[in-house]
Amino acid sequence: MFDPIEVIKELVSHPSVSTDPSYEAGMQGTRDVLTKLLDGMSLKVEVVPTDRHPVILAKRTGPDSWPHVVIYGHYDVQPPDPLDEWNSPAFEPTMKGTRLYGRGVADNKGPMMAHVTAVGRLLEDNPEFPLRITFLIEGEEEIGSPSLPAVLESHGESLRGDFILLSDTLNPSEDQVAITTGLRGMVSFEIEVSGPNRDVHSGMYGGSIYNPLQALTEICASLHHPDGRINVPGFYDDVITPEQWEKDEVAKLPVTDLEFVQAVGVDKIFTANNRTAMEGVRYEPTLEINGIGGGYQGPGDKTIIAKKGFAKITCRLVANQDPDDIQKKVFKTIRERCPEHVKLTINAFHNGLCYSVVPPGKPNTPANQNPHLARAFAACDKAVEVAFGIPPLYTREGGSIPIIGSLNKALGMDCLMLGLGTGENNLHSPNESFDLSMLEKGISVSKSILKAVAYP
Amino acid sequence: MFDPIEVIKELVSHPSVSTDPSYEAGMQGTRDVLTKLLDGMSLKVEVVPTDRHPVILAKRTGPDSWPHVVIYGHYDVQPPDPLDEWNSPAFEPTMKGTRLYGRGVADNKGPMMAHVTAVGRLLEDNPEFPLRITFLIEGEEEIGSPSLPAVLESHGESLRGDFILLSDTLNPSEDQVAITTGLRGMVSFEIEVSGPNRDVHSGMYGGSIYNPLQALTEICASLHHPDGRINVPGFYDDVITPEQWEKDEVAKLPVTDLEFVQAVGVDKIFTANNRTAMEGVRYEPTLEINGIGGGYQGPGDKTIIAKKGFAKITCRLVANQDPDDIQKKVFKTIRERCPEHVKLTINAFHNGLCYSVVPPGKPNTPANQNPHLARAFAACDKAVEVAFGIPPLYTREGGSIPIIGSLNKALGMDCLMLGLGTGENNLHSPNESFDLSMLEKGISVSKSILKAVAYP
Repeated sequence: MFDPIEVIKELVSHPSVSTDPSYEAGMQGTRDVLTKLLDGMSLKVEVVPTDRHPVILAKRTGPDSWPHVVIYGHYDVQPPDPLDEWNSPAFEPTMKGTRLYGRGVADNKGPMMAHVTAVGRLLEDNPEFPLRITFLIEGEEEIGSPSLPAVLESHGESLRGDFILLSDTLNPSEDQVAITTGLRGMVSFEIEVSGPNRDVHSGMYGGSIYNPLQALTEICASLHHPDGRINVPGFYDDVITPEQWEKDEVAKLPVTDLEFVQAVGVDKIFTANNRTAMEGVRYEPTLEINGIGGGYQGPGDKTIIAKKGFAKITCRLVANQDPDDIQKKVFKTIRERCPEHVKLTINAFHNGLCYSVVPPGKPNTPANQNPHLARAFAACDKAVEVAFGIPPLYTREGGSIPIIGSLNKALGMDCLMLGLGTGENNLHSPNESFDLSMLEKGISVSKSILKAVAYP
Repeated sequence: MFDPIEVIKELVSHPSVSTDPSYEAGMQGTRDVLTKLLDGMSLKVEVVPTDRHPVILAKRTGPDSWPHVVIYGHYDVQPPDPLDEWNSPAFEPTMKGTRLYGRGVADNKGPMMAHVTAVGRLLEDNPEFPLRITFLIEGEEEIGSPSLPAVLESHGESLRGDFILLSDTLNPSEDQVAITTGLRGMVSFEIEVSGPNRDVHSGMYGGSIYNPLQALTEICASLHHPDGRINVPGFYDDVITPEQWEKDEVAKLPVTDLEFVQAVGVDKIFTANNRTAMEGVRYEPTLEINGIGGGYQGPGDKTIIAKKGFAKITCRLVANQDPDDIQKKVFKTIRERCPEHVKLTINAFHNGLCYSVVPPGKPNTPANQNPHLARAFAACDKAVEVAFGIPPLYTREGGSIPIIGSLNKALGMDCLMLGLGTGENNLHSPNESFDLSMLEKGISVSKSILKAVAYP
């Protein structure tokens, strides 16, 4: 059997940044490591080409009577910048204590390897293990899984399992595991505001033309009310209030509001609708400026009116909000608020569906919930208590995994999302890390889940 | 005698960007060309060190009975970026037709050389030419002349002449010369808004902390009213209404509002207080965002809340506004409007005084206007009509030359500002150029002015 830690290090050393075409070699290198590994586990590996980054499918087939679990992961990572804030090079895996540092080590290469290893060991112990398994490992999670619809189209039926298992979500602490019951959806786009056909002298033109950077800030600033709510007509129309049991679970999270935000150096929480910090990231939709730029960026000053500026914006959506509907409303609002003196371009990147699931035994669990999923949830609950000494909490999460909503919508599969990281992992930030003490615990929980489904 | 065109080309080939310390060699190279040239004209050259870029003084001394003209120029230039928009390299002087292209060719190396050449030829023709002349050529005009106060302190009395002559202003067209009667002042600064101590995942934190880029756009957007007026309490308190004769002169400018803005690809003018475009850049103070940045700048998207963002801002001020007072009001307003959830830093760059002069014979010309200045204005008026076929207009300009206001305040000297460029020169923009057909005309006008003062 392979050593999962060595494999994780090798995966991290290949820079697989999906959003930036200059990382093509890193994408290829990461795929090569994974396909070789999965092939070595006697799985039937297929690299499905797409318009951008191929999807890796690895199948363990068997009779129709065997249950079928789809295990999801992604091999792409976020861009590493700002590079100068890393304490060790982003793509050189570096151990410090029990933590391994590197871009993508926690999102999602390390946690994904818990499931790959669990399957490897189960099959090594028992080559007749009675379970069909499909690994679906994509390379576009960080850019919104744009190629997914085409892959579902071409491979849909073979991807239809009893449920999906994955670890791409977070726990409130190293000790307290969370089973994620909901993911936020996403609308991602960029606006560009342009004025003069070149950067012009602010003494010669200032006072007689509209500064596009001023228009840009005016549009951006108009998108929130002072109380933190999003100022786009109809934005909240379809938001569903969370159930009481969900609020009760969130209240059990062992982190205070202040501890949560102080962990990133912020003195005060800021939430809409009087939410706690823990509720804000789970139950509130957002509209965030992720990047803004335009005009002179160097040291000192330069007295120009710039030709253009841009803002990159993503909305996170909560259950029952439809990304296409929200996109339409936000774009319409931005167009209406753009001063007529400048030109506006909106470039849509991608949308992602929200997803939520009600675990067995909670109020409003669907009466016809599939028995494989119910068994998986029950086994997971027990195995987490054994491995971590405390049962899991069942909470929504603030992140988005658009493919989950899409798979659910297209193939009707629900998801068991087992958290194997914490906020300390610095996902999407410099100095991303993964605590390797989570790895063996994760492998053990994954094995328990798969066994419970294979042997009902 | 030197060939002024060859000297201008040599000057442009030295990249003298004052705001960026990496251009130190270009600053030195430009100074070397000038000091050698002025020394060759038998002037007494002194390079006065300052905290940043030295000032070049070159003196032609004589008896106290000779009038004393101070000729101002600057050897520093704006940064050349965006470099990819230049049709020829920014620091390789390139002729096309009668125009010479290169950063700084029009601002201020070419026009300055008209006066250097005029003095060179006058002294060559008549070594006994009865005029004291001081060239004051600084290297910090584009960064607000921060070292000027110290130079005035150390060399003040020797710089006190009867008036200042310079060409660092623009004409409305190649045929219509403008004598500039006013310059806008300046307040320049940068604000930085910061939130979390690193870029964080917008799914994990979005909804519970204040996005610093959102706060940045909200602060910036709050600084204007929708009608274009600046929304800072007290900003307009000291603004003086222009005289009727000034508005009449501006109305004679041979450019329509639409022609003016269409020259830079804009379809509509935008002015405060119902000004025409020509009035807006002359009579209205401004607050312009010259650059804005923060968060993800690469291709595609990145779902983060950035740790910080910045905006570089300059205000242009009009007659009677005090830069220190305006700076205080703007900073106070920005501090008041910054949400308490983020941190704000304001970095002041430099301030510059406004300046205005009333030419002889206009209403409100001071009764005691100095006779040397009056003779210079009269000679200039006549010489411009001879060289260009049409008398000059007398108008304020939108640009700023902070040293002019400072010299006026410190030494009581007024200025004759002869325009030798047009908007087509692309000052501060890519593809800056200077029409060399202006050079000989400028030399001839400069000679006429100096002769009229020397031989009253």
